[in-house]
Amino acid sequence: MTTKRIGFAGLGLMGGRMARNLLKKGFPLTVWNRTPGRAADLVALGGAEAATPAEAARSADIVVTCVSDTPDVEAVVFGPDGVVDGLAPGGLLIDCSTISPSATTAFAARLRERGIGMVDAPVSGGSEGAKKGTLTIFVGGEAADVERARPVLGAMGTTITHFGPSGSGQAVKAVNQVVIAGIYLGVAEGMVLAMKAGLDPEVVAGALGGGVAKSWILENRSGKMIRNDYPLGFRTSLHLKDLAIALDLARSTGTTLPVASLAAQLEAGLVARGYGDEDMSNLARAIRSLSGLEG
Amino acid sequence: MTTKRIGFAGLGLMGGRMARNLLKKGFPLTVWNRTPGRAADLVALGGAEAATPAEAARSADIVVTCVSDTPDVEAVVFGPDGVVDGLAPGGLLIDCSTISPSATTAFAARLRERGIGMVDAPVSGGSEGAKKGTLTIFVGGEAADVERARPVLGAMGTTITHFGPSGSGQAVKAVNQVVIAGIYLGVAEGMVLAMKAGLDPEVVAGALGGGVAKSWILENRSGKMIRNDYPLGFRTSLHLKDLAIALDLARSTGTTLPVASLAAQLEAGLVARGYGDEDMSNLARAIRSLSGLEG
Repeated sequence: MTTKRIGFAGLGLMGGRMARNLLKKGFPLTVWNRTPGRAADLVALGGAEAATPAEAARSADIVVTCVSDTPDVEAVVFGPDGVVDGLAPGGLLIDCSTISPSATTAFAARLRERGIGMVDAPVSGGSEGAKKGTLTIFVGGEAADVERARPVLGAMGTTITHFGPSGSGQAVKAVNQVVIAGIYLGVAEGMVLAMKAGLDPEVVAGALGGGVAKSWILENRSGKMIRNDYPLGFRTSLHLKDLAIALDLARSTGTTLPVASLAAQLEAGLVARGYGDEDMSNLARAIRSLSGLEG
Repeated sequence: MTTKRIGFAGLGLMGGRMARNLLKKGFPLTVWNRTPGRAADLVALGGAEAATPAEAARSADIVVTCVSDTPDVEAVVFGPDGVVDGLAPGGLLIDCSTISPSATTAFAARLRERGIGMVDAPVSGGSEGAKKGTLTIFVGGEAADVERARPVLGAMGTTITHFGPSGSGQAVKAVNQVVIAGIYLGVAEGMVLAMKAGLDPEVVAGALGGGVAKSWILENRSGKMIRNDYPLGFRTSLHLKDLAIALDLARSTGTTLPVASLAAQLEAGLVARGYGDEDMSNLARAIRSLSGLEG
């Protein structure tokens, strides 16, 4: 079997590291990024750089997109000099962006009319997981397309789960963002109460971590909340974008999510105050502010 | 050193098992329970049974209380035939109930006037931890009293942390109940969204558990939420009681806890609907009901 040639669009904090792992695993790679100047180290590793998404797709069997939001995917795939202007019938699009499940289904249908398959494959695990190639990947799409995508996904992540038809990977990512909203807020409220009650919040976090409150977020993010300092991590503005997708899915499926809605409101306030580029554990800023602590 | 004689008041789901561990570790024990008939197996193991808290305390150096709420502690300690009518000056009260931090401080002051020490030592870890003697214990009180209490606490739990003065153990327990309220609601909203979106919620829970959403509650309680069946566990009515304590602490310290407040409101509804004796993962019933699923 000849190794598939891959086009890769979107060299951000996640995409750049994922593309690097594809190169390291021996996939011939042509990369494109909207903002130029991000491809130098990938070219040094043997990658080619394209001037447009269409050019990155032209010689490829499979194109991976890893951009920010639904309109970005639409522009890169269907816009001027987009992926569909380069990718031949029989090709496959793997979208690793986190976007709307329903838009994903519509994009997949439009691509199918051109003989192109599509798999939605949003990832979880942060920039560290992207670097190490240990991402968790939530996959939706037709079984045959998912099988074609698997070697590529396997170069970027370790836990790859196919949930169902097109859009289902994105729906699972939305569920993930809803669950973590509740956990972040629970931990933030607990840490603020501990501080206001005059307890040593670090000792409290350590003691609670042995019981029912045990969670990755308590263990790895309560320290940022206590110090009121939120280096990345995962951007608040991106989680807010993901919650908008989740709340849209909730509306279309008739689901009421009071805590996720509250988290979105609090995050919108944080973004408006200029904190959108901080780690999303800054939800603690909102709870701190409500309680008269520096926040 | 002669082994201390212990009086033990409150043989409920937690207290009965904790008393058993004290007997097994060789502490001479006299037990009392408000409802008679709970002491038979403890008497078979060599324990004595008393007709009143005062009688349980009369021959003891240390009395352990493990009852439901603040008024219960007040009645057992200060009420007719209460602990203070039996426990001699120089004695020590260890209160393992989960009650108000400020009431605890007041009780400790009243006892100090009689020459009796008090340690607040609420526990976490559920009936299984109580049985195995692996409870996490949050301790408040004067250092000398806590040192006297340590051998007794060590017979019932494995992680024993002294946080500060009287009431601080109760404050930490309140923080714990606030943190878990957020985690339970986050997991419940995620599982309900997964079901409404047509995903397999068990597969989703498994996939999410490898990432940022990793938590004891997702791992151990999402199954109950999916099946809408909530065997104990930890009673909703007791968590609601604990949240009332936490929200009272929040009010007195000027802390705003929107998610914990929401959880208390939802749990009050569940109790009113007759679900107070179910495991508190039935918070998912509330989210299910809001979204038109059986709940």
